[in-house]
Amino acid sequence: MVQTDILIIGAGPTGLFTVFEAGLLKLKCHIIDALPQAGGQCSELYPKKPIYDIPGFPEVLAGDLVSNLMQQIAPFQPGFTLGERADSIEKLEDGTFIVTTNKGTKHQAPVVAIAGGLGSFEPRKPILDNLSKFEDNGVAYMIKDPEVYRDKKVLIAGGGDSALDWSIFLADIAKEVTLVHRRNEFRGALDSVEKVQELKDKGKINLITPAEVVGLEGKDALEAVIVRKNNNPKEDQKIIVDNFIPLFGLSPKLGPIAKWGLEIEKNAIKVDNTLDYQTNIPGIYAIGDVNTYPGKLKLILCGFHEATLMCQSAYQRIFPDKKYVMKYTTVGGVTGFDGSKKEAPKAVVKAIN
Amino acid sequence: MVQTDILIIGAGPTGLFTVFEAGLLKLKCHIIDALPQAGGQCSELYPKKPIYDIPGFPEVLAGDLVSNLMQQIAPFQPGFTLGERADSIEKLEDGTFIVTTNKGTKHQAPVVAIAGGLGSFEPRKPILDNLSKFEDNGVAYMIKDPEVYRDKKVLIAGGGDSALDWSIFLADIAKEVTLVHRRNEFRGALDSVEKVQELKDKGKINLITPAEVVGLEGKDALEAVIVRKNNNPKEDQKIIVDNFIPLFGLSPKLGPIAKWGLEIEKNAIKVDNTLDYQTNIPGIYAIGDVNTYPGKLKLILCGFHEATLMCQSAYQRIFPDKKYVMKYTTVGGVTGFDGSKKEAPKAVVKAIN
Ligand SMILES: Cc1cc2nc3c(=O)[nH]c(=O)nc-3n(C[C@H](O)[C@H](O)[C@H](O)COP(=O)(O)OP(=O)(O)OC[C@H]3O[C@@H](n4cnc5c(N)ncnc54)[C@H](O)[C@@H]3O)c2cc1C
Ligand SMILES: Cc1cc2nc3c(=O)[nH]c(=O)nc-3n(C[C@H](O)[C@H](O)[C@H](O)COP(=O)(O)OP(=O)(O)OC[C@H]3O[C@@H](n4cnc5c(N)ncnc54)[C@H](O)[C@@H]3O)c2cc1C
Repeated sequence: MVQTDILIIGAGPTGLFTVFEAGLLKLKCHIIDALPQAGGQCSELYPKKPIYDIPGFPEVLAGDLVSNLMQQIAPFQPGFTLGERADSIEKLEDGTFIVTTNKGTKHQAPVVAIAGGLGSFEPRKPILDNLSKFEDNGVAYMIKDPEVYRDKKVLIAGGGDSALDWSIFLADIAKEVTLVHRRNEFRGALDSVEKVQELKDKGKINLITPAEVVGLEGKDALEAVIVRKNNNPKEDQKIIVDNFIPLFGLSPKLGPIAKWGLEIEKNAIKVDNTLDYQTNIPGIYAIGDVNTYPGKLKLILCGFHEATLMCQSAYQRIFPDKKYVMKYTTVGGVTGFDGSKKEAPKAVVKAIN
Repeated sequence: MVQTDILIIGAGPTGLFTVFEAGLLKLKCHIIDALPQAGGQCSELYPKKPIYDIPGFPEVLAGDLVSNLMQQIAPFQPGFTLGERADSIEKLEDGTFIVTTNKGTKHQAPVVAIAGGLGSFEPRKPILDNLSKFEDNGVAYMIKDPEVYRDKKVLIAGGGDSALDWSIFLADIAKEVTLVHRRNEFRGALDSVEKVQELKDKGKINLITPAEVVGLEGKDALEAVIVRKNNNPKEDQKIIVDNFIPLFGLSPKLGPIAKWGLEIEKNAIKVDNTLDYQTNIPGIYAIGDVNTYPGKLKLILCGFHEATLMCQSAYQRIFPDKKYVMKYTTVGGVTGFDGSKKEAPKAVVKAIN
């Protein structure tokens, strides 16, 4: 059982910054995310695109913003349960919560902060008869650890940035990479498209277009896929593979959280914006894109503010008898749980003679 | 008469970022500040100190944060009235406001955003009989344009960073710089103290400590000051100067704004945090350190959020009939009033053969 002070659901920018604000209050955090990596929409949907409205950054790539946040929170050593979806919640008699993921991992905390954005990112799956049989048995919808594919025969399907980028990346690691897409045209960053062309020309990526995967074969684990070219059954070919990775995009679904007894409005969780972004269940907060209140804007900078106010309230819930006196970071410095300490240089008092 | 869409009082981080958010909505801004430079507390009180809790910046010098914000808002060409204090406000029949400064400059706008922080920075003045006679006539409490002192004889009084830094700066510009402080010890950044020592040793700064200015002389403009050393009238010396600049620190005072009919609580302006940070006078908003509401935190990141929500409300006030549809900057780009356009690179759709 993972135990922590604030259990955060969602590793998007809001969830990540919560770790920092909680850390200033000496509260520990653990984050669950359905994705294999931190960053939420920024990492999954537009890592290489610039954002212009993060205060203090005239321009910052979404992926760089996430790296910066990861660096900022590092001293507070957050725990992560990645690639798992928070599925159910239970309130114990002592007032703490237990959150269990789809893989059965359990987490306990006195405060739960839902920073779930537009929802847990779920893969769009191809429609194939025996697909579920091979899930986690040769078929994967996202890549958690590329090393798994070292010296393997891999077939990727898809026509966007993920399919392009992972084909490029795995071309160096896997024994064989086949990329299948139902059109000849790919849609993505120019340099990714050009790089795939180059790897194809060098024989490092085996490209089949326009084509679709129409069948899966294998006894226990996946052994081969059937690829149909030009929509013509006569052109079906069987390709021996260890892995099939359909990358048709991930789309967010509020999913199980919608059934936790929280007040939902417009597919978002209603919170008390007059104070602390708490939901109708005391001890459960909702911050960032996942919440709604009058005038709500789904912007990253708003999630930062909400996380900050929420942490103050969480502190009072966890330590009802302590009074927290805020100190500016510039004045009090930042002391990490890892023993690190950052501090503004002190002024000297020195005679001039 | 300066005319604009949103008149902002206070050029601290909150006021500055308001220009950006307003600009996205195609609203123009003008900023009034009592200080000669933008940046509020960050520039005036701790420009060289690191802040650790600006989201996305593991560490940023307060002065750099201000420069970044200035760069971020530049495309929206804000107007500035610097070195003047907003003193009075008047509501016209057409619903617009006129704000007049202590120097008589008038500004008209349909929306006023008070981002006045802890108040307008006012100098601590030495107690000298005929001080006011020489104000703006040889005596100044802050330095708006250092060029004014080129080839002049200048006497600075004070023992902190401002006194040290301006003595160093003016040593290169003025004909003569005298620095007077009531102690031998100065309190400031180590390198500033050391630099003054060095300039003193080279004869480029004339240092008198422990000493105080006890008298001012001059017919119309300032001509000389009397400096008393060691608290001993027998050691009084008359120094011929063009300028006397006492730098005893600026301290913020809510001042005239407290009399504008706004609801005040704990020396701050009460606002509606359930929606748009509007005050009890429709059309006047208060954002950043200057406002108060349940759970308020005087943090820079909170001011950014408040400014953003406030601009949405201001838009509706100015264009009651238009519906604004928010577009992410990543998606819609940023189009400046100067014709500049920043935009994320578009994805290509390209065949691989
Ligand atoms: C193309 C695009 C451009 C954008 N441009 C801008 C912009 O310029 N400026 C701006 O401010 N905003 C922009 N946004 C919006 C911005 O990305 C979001 O406001 C921001 O990501 C919200 O952060 P968050 O942390 O609240 O949620 P998210 O980033 O959505 O992260 C939520 C995370 O929670 C996880 N999660 C949800 N439910 C569960 C569960 N049950 N179990 C496990 N994990 C779960 C999800 O997998 C996800 O990783 C843009 C969005 C898009 C799509
Ligand atoms: C030493 C120190 C360290 C700090 N460290 C941190 C930190 O680590 N993190 C953090 O988030 N915050 C920190 N703060 C607080 C932070 O500086 C403030 O929250 C921030 O400056 C508030 O911004 P603002 O724009 O609302 O107001 P201010 O920065 O106070 O700016 C207000 C401006 O309005 C002007 N003004 C007011 N009234 C008038 C008027 N009538 N006419 C004309 N001009 C007027 C003032 O002159 C001033 O320039 C620190 C503050 C100090 C003093």
